[in-house]
Amino acid sequence: MFATHGFAAVSVRAIATEAGVDPSLVHHFFGTKRELFDAVTAMPLDDDEAVAGMLEAGLDGLGERVARHVVGQLRAGDTGRTLVALVRTASSDPRAAEQLRERYTRDLLEPVARGLEVDQPELRAALCCSQLLGLALTEHIIGLAPLREARTETLIAVYGATLQRYLTAPLPG
Amino acid sequence: MFATHGFAAVSVRAIATEAGVDPSLVHHFFGTKRELFDAVTAMPLDDDEAVAGMLEAGLDGLGERVARHVVGQLRAGDTGRTLVALVRTASSDPRAAEQLRERYTRDLLEPVARGLEVDQPELRAALCCSQLLGLALTEHIIGLAPLREARTETLIAVYGATLQRYLTAPLPG
Repeated sequence: MFATHGFAAVSVRAIATEAGVDPSLVHHFFGTKRELFDAVTAMPLDDDEAVAGMLEAGLDGLGERVARHVVGQLRAGDTGRTLVALVRTASSDPRAAEQLRERYTRDLLEPVARGLEVDQPELRAALCCSQLLGLALTEHIIGLAPLREARTETLIAVYGATLQRYLTAPLPG
Repeated sequence: MFATHGFAAVSVRAIATEAGVDPSLVHHFFGTKRELFDAVTAMPLDDDEAVAGMLEAGLDGLGERVARHVVGQLRAGDTGRTLVALVRTASSDPRAAEQLRERYTRDLLEPVARGLEVDQPELRAALCCSQLLGLALTEHIIGLAPLREARTETLIAVYGATLQRYLTAPLPG
């Protein structure tokens, strides 16, 4: 529900109704709406390890592996929905923006810097982030039809080549 | 102020205070907060024509021309701030998302389809949009430091090559 409507537009009562429980039960287990949001968006840790593993497997075909994972997750996965919820919320909430900066550092920057022998790992990770979150934004929040209707394999091929360039090609400056 | 805080977090009173006028004057000239937002985000039409002109000048160096324009505007221009305001607001407001879809069609898709002899103009324009709005999101809303600190010419070179590929390279499928 956070992914579909954004943090501000969702009430704990609506979440409880959807789950078929009393709102007091949600408060009992998760605390405030913000604490519930934090619990939900912190969840898919296995998935972060998957991305780190991809990066550790080396440069060859890396862009496509990352694109396959993220494009697929955005279309049908908990991590993808978490990412969309965070992007939606970050736009009006500095704390969610901070969460996204932390995830960028932990899930992309640190694995890139640790796993790959490349110059400027910070900028390379941020460039990848700008394209992957841009896809989350335009396909899943703004809802551009050509992206929603594109075949998954098409998006993987196109974005895979972009990520490969961002991660491995010479950078100016 | 819409670009910095998002639509929901800004009041007409705060805007009037910043402008040094009485809120009733803002209401008199612009109506509701939503009407004010529409007036502000509809403004930079000259700029849309600039992008259309770039596309009509043909394929050679096109990606870099578009990147130079958009990266520059995002860092110091009314169009850039408008774009950031729309992206911020679209995340929690279906009507702003609709405005962005319209702008995508009018400012990117139609000029691409009219000016360039390429297959799949809809998908190509949407791919460009995913990268350009992704930059607006990650540099200006989430605030990733490596993007904020990168030289303008570096971003133009990197994103220019990406846009050139999205606009002109063979697409799978």
